[in-house]
Amino acid sequence: MARILLTLRYDGTAYHGWQVQPNGVTVQQVLQDAVEAVTGVRSGITGCSRTDAGVHADMFCCTFDSDTLLRGDKLCCALNFHLPRDVSVYDAREVEEAFHPRYHAKGKRYVYRIWNGAQRHPVYDKYAVWLKKPLDVDFLDRVAQDYVGTHDFAAFCGAGSDLLGTTERTISACSVTREGDVVLFTVEGDGFLYNMVRIMVGTLLEIAAERLSPDSIPTILEGRDRTAAGPTAPAQGLCLEQVFYD
Amino acid sequence: MARILLTLRYDGTAYHGWQVQPNGVTVQQVLQDAVEAVTGVRSGITGCSRTDAGVHADMFCCTFDSDTLLRGDKLCCALNFHLPRDVSVYDAREVEEAFHPRYHAKGKRYVYRIWNGAQRHPVYDKYAVWLKKPLDVDFLDRVAQDYVGTHDFAAFCGAGSDLLGTTERTISACSVTREGDVVLFTVEGDGFLYNMVRIMVGTLLEIAAERLSPDSIPTILEGRDRTAAGPTAPAQGLCLEQVFYD
Repeated sequence: MARILLTLRYDGTAYHGWQVQPNGVTVQQVLQDAVEAVTGVRSGITGCSRTDAGVHADMFCCTFDSDTLLRGDKLCCALNFHLPRDVSVYDAREVEEAFHPRYHAKGKRYVYRIWNGAQRHPVYDKYAVWLKKPLDVDFLDRVAQDYVGTHDFAAFCGAGSDLLGTTERTISACSVTREGDVVLFTVEGDGFLYNMVRIMVGTLLEIAAERLSPDSIPTILEGRDRTAAGPTAPAQGLCLEQVFYD
Repeated sequence: MARILLTLRYDGTAYHGWQVQPNGVTVQQVLQDAVEAVTGVRSGITGCSRTDAGVHADMFCCTFDSDTLLRGDKLCCALNFHLPRDVSVYDAREVEEAFHPRYHAKGKRYVYRIWNGAQRHPVYDKYAVWLKKPLDVDFLDRVAQDYVGTHDFAAFCGAGSDLLGTTERTISACSVTREGDVVLFTVEGDGFLYNMVRIMVGTLLEIAAERLSPDSIPTILEGRDRTAAGPTAPAQGLCLEQVFYD
């Protein structure tokens, strides 16, 4: 038996997130089906995180144990042959038996996209949230720096989280930038609570709409009260862009 | 009656091209439906070009004549309310009565996207053609310069064209560039024959695959023989990016 690390990207539009669940198709499930089709054995697959329904990933890592002798491009091609077109494995390699894609992840980078054009966009409709009012990215970039550092992010944790342990997380960098009519919120950290990035974005957009004051983030963090933060921004704007390992 | 110029973008995946036809849904048809829903009158709509089935547009211009008093953002919003989500009007303005979106266009810019990653991409699957073999963009950019200038493009005109008149066209600029794993072929010219950009790309890809020699474009142009050029590259990689007016 060898432990195999797969790296994949997916368009989350049609999926109920990563993790297998009774009420809808998930990425983990279609991947388990593909692994079974290729290896002849149904293997449990361990993911680097749970992504929510509708969230996308440009880099998602997961492992399974198998006797298959396929590696690299050959294994990718075999899996992609069986996977739906909105999921694609682009790296497959053997790792140490003890490697765990979640516990060994040093951090992650998420990108949240906002389509900031005057009218909705046929493509960004699926990969961004639409906000008509022009955003001042320099202002929002300065505001967003209040997220950087080690904080208790309890106010930025969605209800329904089955979290055990601390709500302290470290954000190493974040930025708000513009590429034409697309505004990007990019955030890097050692770990993220349930819905955390989407609530961080929802809070920034409340500040942009002047329903929260520009200096409210430190107060919200301190208060640890979910209702003080902004709403959870829609799933389709979020993309897991990178997972960091040593 | 006023002549109104609409500018729109669309994801062509679900459409049988621009022009109304008996065998499938077209962009012109859904737009005529939306105009009728907003103005109460069914108007003929004149487009700046015919795009093929599956081709996308980031800027497509068309006109219709109407008594509606709506202009600008209000007309865009009203039309977008009735349009499917993969079509979006983002500019609407009154133009001179004699304005014709096709005859008055000075030129157009098309972009053809190639996903050049080792495995297929869940999103570029719909907006690019997948080519696994790494492309040498500097080499292809040099080769593509043979398209620039005024030439008879008869060899680059698809069968089934109902063209009347000359097959001479002027290409003012073209380039092959790379953005990560996406290779872009960008071409600007005064006009394009049926399937012309897709055959230009198909020919470049034959040269990349060494099935045609790097200096074959001038010979193909001179020969005016469609069978000497490469195949028509798939529709989903093509996007009408800009239409130029005075």
